Amino acid sequence: MDGMHTTTSFPTDWQLARLKDIQATPSGWIPAEVPGCVQRDWARDRGWPDPNCGQNIRLYDGLEDSAWLYRTKVPHDRELTAQDQRLVFLLGGVDHHAEVRLGGRQIADLTGMESRLEWDVTNDGGNTLEILLHPVPKRHGRPGDRSQASATTKPAVSYGWDWHPRFIPQGLTGTVGFFLCPAVRVTDADVRYELSEDFSCVRLWVTAQATPDAGALAWQLHDPEGICVLRGVVGECAVLSSPRLWWTHDHGEPTLYRLEIHSPDSPLPIWQMRIGFRRVRLVMPPDGWREPSRFPKSRSLPPITLELNGRPLFVKGTNLVPSDLCPSPVDNEPLINLAREAHFNLLRCWGGAAAPSSGFFQACDRIGILVWQEFPLACNLYPDSLEYLAELTAHALLLVRRVRRHPSLALWCGGNELFNSWSRMTDQSLALRHLNRICLEEDPGTPFLPTSPMEGMGHGDYRFLNEHGQDVFVTFQNASNTAYTEFGCPGPASVEAIQKMIPNDELWPPCPGGSWETHHGFGAWEQKHWLCLDVLEHYFGPCPDLETMVARGQWLQAEGYRGIYEEARRQWPQCSMALNWCFNEPWPCASNNSLLSWPHDPKPAYFTVSEACRPVIASARIPRFQWRCGDNFTAEIWMLNDTVRQLPQGEIEVSLREGERRLELLRWHHQDIGAQASLRGPSVHCSLPEVTTSDCFVLELIVQDHPERNSSYCLSLIPKSSPTSCAVPITPELNR
Amino acid sequence: MDGMHTTTSFPTDWQLARLKDIQATPSGWIPAEVPGCVQRDWARDRGWPDPNCGQNIRLYDGLEDSAWLYRTKVPHDRELTAQDQRLVFLLGGVDHHAEVRLGGRQIADLTGMESRLEWDVTNDGGNTLEILLHPVPKRHGRPGDRSQASATTKPAVSYGWDWHPRFIPQGLTGTVGFFLCPAVRVTDADVRYELSEDFSCVRLWVTAQATPDAGALAWQLHDPEGICVLRGVVGECAVLSSPRLWWTHDHGEPTLYRLEIHSPDSPLPIWQMRIGFRRVRLVMPPDGWREPSRFPKSRSLPPITLELNGRPLFVKGTNLVPSDLCPSPVDNEPLINLAREAHFNLLRCWGGAAAPSSGFFQACDRIGILVWQEFPLACNLYPDSLEYLAELTAHALLLVRRVRRHPSLALWCGGNELFNSWSRMTDQSLALRHLNRICLEEDPGTPFLPTSPMEGMGHGDYRFLNEHGQDVFVTFQNASNTAYTEFGCPGPASVEAIQKMIPNDELWPPCPGGSWETHHGFGAWEQKHWLCLDVLEHYFGPCPDLETMVARGQWLQAEGYRGIYEEARRQWPQCSMALNWCFNEPWPCASNNSLLSWPHDPKPAYFTVSEACRPVIASARIPRFQWRCGDNFTAEIWMLNDTVRQLPQGEIEVSLREGERRLELLRWHHQDIGAQASLRGPSVHCSLPEVTTSDCFVLELIVQDHPERNSSYCLSLIPKSSPTSCAVPITPELNR
Repeated sequence: MDGMHTTTSFPTDWQLARLKDIQATPSGWIPAEVPGCVQRDWARDRGWPDPNCGQNIRLYDGLEDSAWLYRTKVPHDRELTAQDQRLVFLLGGVDHHAEVRLGGRQIADLTGMESRLEWDVTNDGGNTLEILLHPVPKRHGRPGDRSQASATTKPAVSYGWDWHPRFIPQGLTGTVGFFLCPAVRVTDADVRYELSEDFSCVRLWVTAQATPDAGALAWQLHDPEGICVLRGVVGECAVLSSPRLWWTHDHGEPTLYRLEIHSPDSPLPIWQMRIGFRRVRLVMPPDGWREPSRFPKSRSLPPITLELNGRPLFVKGTNLVPSDLCPSPVDNEPLINLAREAHFNLLRCWGGAAAPSSGFFQACDRIGILVWQEFPLACNLYPDSLEYLAELTAHALLLVRRVRRHPSLALWCGGNELFNSWSRMTDQSLALRHLNRICLEEDPGTPFLPTSPMEGMGHGDYRFLNEHGQDVFVTFQNASNTAYTEFGCPGPASVEAIQKMIPNDELWPPCPGGSWETHHGFGAWEQKHWLCLDVLEHYFGPCPDLETMVARGQWLQAEGYRGIYEEARRQWPQCSMALNWCFNEPWPCASNNSLLSWPHDPKPAYFTVSEACRPVIASARIPRFQWRCGDNFTAEIWMLNDTVRQLPQGEIEVSLREGERRLELLRWHHQDIGAQASLRGPSVHCSLPEVTTSDCFVLELIVQDHPERNSSYCLSLIPKSSPTSCAVPITPELNR
Repeated sequence: MDGMHTTTSFPTDWQLARLKDIQATPSGWIPAEVPGCVQRDWARDRGWPDPNCGQNIRLYDGLEDSAWLYRTKVPHDRELTAQDQRLVFLLGGVDHHAEVRLGGRQIADLTGMESRLEWDVTNDGGNTLEILLHPVPKRHGRPGDRSQASATTKPAVSYGWDWHPRFIPQGLTGTVGFFLCPAVRVTDADVRYELSEDFSCVRLWVTAQATPDAGALAWQLHDPEGICVLRGVVGECAVLSSPRLWWTHDHGEPTLYRLEIHSPDSPLPIWQMRIGFRRVRLVMPPDGWREPSRFPKSRSLPPITLELNGRPLFVKGTNLVPSDLCPSPVDNEPLINLAREAHFNLLRCWGGAAAPSSGFFQACDRIGILVWQEFPLACNLYPDSLEYLAELTAHALLLVRRVRRHPSLALWCGGNELFNSWSRMTDQSLALRHLNRICLEEDPGTPFLPTSPMEGMGHGDYRFLNEHGQDVFVTFQNASNTAYTEFGCPGPASVEAIQKMIPNDELWPPCPGGSWETHHGFGAWEQKHWLCLDVLEHYFGPCPDLETMVARGQWLQAEGYRGIYEEARRQWPQCSMALNWCFNEPWPCASNNSLLSWPHDPKPAYFTVSEACRPVIASARIPRFQWRCGDNFTAEIWMLNDTVRQLPQGEIEVSLREGERRLELLRWHHQDIGAQASLRGPSVHCSLPEVTTSDCFVLELIVQDHPERNSSYCLSLIPKSSPTSCAVPITPELNR
């Protein structure tokens, strides 16, 4: 809804030819969808089977080394074009490098999905518009993996990842086509603002690019009720007193104002956009300056506590990945709504993928979810070469200018895991220094991180059970990071989803090498990931069938994730973020760390995580997942409060449930709990009873008068004498 | 010698008036030295006693809150000015803020010692040139300490430091005065270059600002023998094949070329400068990517290994501080030569002080010593305010452009200890992001650090004995930092120097509160620093007299520093830098961590450090400084080789000397030692004999056929039964 006020789309038919190289002459044409991806067009024309099933995706191998020529006729029916209108060709982005020709004459050479073209064709002589897509960039001499993407802004994820097949799309993105536009129009506009330190007023500057005859442009600012609260002139400053601030959904209202730009000749606005006013900072936690304390002394850890409008937040969220293998105009709103329902207040848009569309940011603005936006660098050593830096800085400038006015933007970040051994970039890398520079020049009010993780922050673990025999509860209770910005617990997709992606003859037992491996059940991170059959066997013995495997794997994932999110919250304010890897999937994964199966189907873990992220909860710090009958069970009981309200005293009843039996352990009468504070309560102790009907027991925390704060944990229980194994599939309350 | 080829100074008399504020009318004039410092002029006129003695420095308190007016007559004797000459007023810098007026008309408003003014007065109507100095900047509401300097580029050190009295100078710096210059001239020139990856060629661009009638300028590059090896045109590129590289004195020749700029009309060059070609990078040590290894995983440590022309260096050096309380044209060459003789290859010019003059960089270029240059931020929280950022960025731009072409420049750094609790800046601070930006834009080939220390690097300790009873040997043998960029061991000045700075009636015993405290014997870092009488008493019992105190304090300093430098070298390549705090002093300090007493008189520690920094040495890793008779003494024997040559096998004889006795402990026949490598040898063990005549024993390492590689360590020895104390003053081989 942001942008030009009145335009009319003028659809044309597009055709596509596959070329062996950019010099080749087309020998045949197929219909093309625009915007779209040549691989989809080609597959449709060839009648290829569903790429999401079995190993069909491998049919696409090598297509990316072709050049592709799009063409369409320029609509020159003059009668359509009234005197005060222009016919304009818009191109919202190219994936990844294209030459645009009008009537055989090159009018643009574009690189990347942030590049834009707006070309007035009203009086242009050309009849045919052609777009020549180059083969995808592949860094010379690199093997067929993500390192081929190490000198380009094309997203590295397409070159193959542990949850993304190697599938390197090409195409046209964003808005593409011919449009009738008013002759007098704004072609681009932006608003910058500066909140006073005490938030009592905000200074605004509105800028606009317009057609030459647009005259002096004025603007109006309307509050959420539609009342005009401020007027100004484009290019000059104006001050709004007592602005209503933009907040995340869990801390207030995501207040948006509407800004309209008017020309003297037109009663209707010729441009409009939503804006919100917020101040985001990275600040130190309360004890952040205490260390280092001993000599020789290094620096204190860099800040990663996100402060919104002066209030430090505990950030609960997730890592968003592409929702499709092709860049697509897919509406992310279902994903964003699921994030909101999980009580998440931030989404990390990771550097392996392309930056989301403006529609995505508008939805986050509206729903009240922050966005951590990375530049397209991930897990590679991106060079200091002039060619790469030129492509990167051009891309970054466009991205920052497109996104900076969105109140949901919380953080710019250079990219993913660049300062680790598998990437080997450093603080001295010119690419990251340039990104820091561009963010400083174009958006100084938004924090910048060179990469994640920085010192103090943690990525991983991505295993329920590590090589030292420690489960996730132990791993995170032993950790003391300032932010957990990636961590994973793998879990399989549903039986139904697996039955769709794995052909019947491969379905059971799962084996490496075939469709299970193509869909990341094996050979993903390490050979055994992400099905992790060894871990399932460690806890439960061999899986007899698909249904049992799925139930057990989803159980581990659900309780593992619950444990990590709650532990991170218990570590507040020293720790201020918990973002799991990852929220969703670009295609069907047999098993993955995701909370949602493709396209956005919640796994059981989605529900345990959303329980763990409720604003106020009772929480148990449980030392491990699996117990034996007769063990002395123990757990610390806590109350966690992420709200800014103080909670009055109350009572919590703690009990164990095993089969039909229920054992009350203690009642904790807790005192008042401060705003944004945790309270550690007593520890429970009991000897675990003998197994009766099930292989699990449930620790229940019942909060008197507040059932919405109850928590329960489903843990593994095995007979005293038996080896680790369980006879029956476990389906506790997780599956709903 | 760099700069304009022919200028003639045209001296004039300068006068100075003290004003209560910048609006006040002068009521009297005194003679002024230019360049110079108003405090010096005022003291000379008032006949004040030596500021270096006793507490006389306190006479100057408050002068800095005055404004000062300089004035001189513009020489307008036309006959002096030939037709092809111009009379130009040059001002090399102001300390700190000045308005310049010619004939009552303001011609410039300058801030800081990097600001420059060149004003052609040949045909200007003014007869009087006035310079109005504003009172020094003091941040509003701050106490009388360095925090008053937290929103200015004026060096913070002047506001008081633990080795610098509070003395805040004002004045004119650099070249100041009237000069006859050729009418056709270059006013500024620079050269930028890019070495090819394999060093086989270098691309040069020479730029110049010249008077309008200068015509097309050409340049010539002369090698050290004076042979012209390349010619070019200003503003265009040219390529030199097989350039001779610039090296530090310990790794090769500091090769300098001479670049001359010629105008078409003049047979003589109209500008010349020395340049050298080098490539400096910060690279990871060999095992630098190994950590972190466990999940949740943070980043690897940032690189601090300095690589010169592709060769990683072990950096041995020191922190240089101002050599005077006033910015002065003092020739630093004696200091630089002393650094070279100590085998230092890098000087850190710390952010608390003003950047050195161009003459300093020229000397470092010539002598072959690298410079780590910081911007003027130190131990303060510098704000994000627009006013401060404007002053800082203007200053930084001038500094970077002035210094970047010097081959000795190794590193830009935002400032000192900014990411620690006493400063509280962070990676998000706009000042540091702007400095990173400016260095990237203006000098991308030189590394940039936001501050020192960064992660992995260490500052401190500054005590021989810490609060846990560990001496420096223990502290550093337990440390595993990537670079020790500051560490100190305090030691007193010589008896003669102390007798000059402390009045006779205060001389013995030293007491807090008077001249001893003014000269940093007490109340410096903590109350007991830097005399540290408690530490002397801990080891030796009470000091009977000044001579004993000085001898004991200098002994601890000398052996402490030797131990740290050698330990840092043994930790190579994981550790790659050892820079002590500090080299010199701005005025007489009774005791200080410096190696040189003011102005540049070596303390005994200077000689032990220069022994520890010889390119190849035998070295002992000794677990502590003080031993008792009968103790089982032990030490690891090492050979350290900083050269790029492999050392052939050899023999080392290790013995103990106590009084007249000599005890041979072992002979180590070591194998070949690799280039830039250390070799750990055997450990010696022996029971320490009873004390005879002295309170120390010496561990001697004699390298067969290479006496220049011998090392010896003088350690404290106390009787088995006695409490820690020694009866006679110790003056081992340290004092020479």
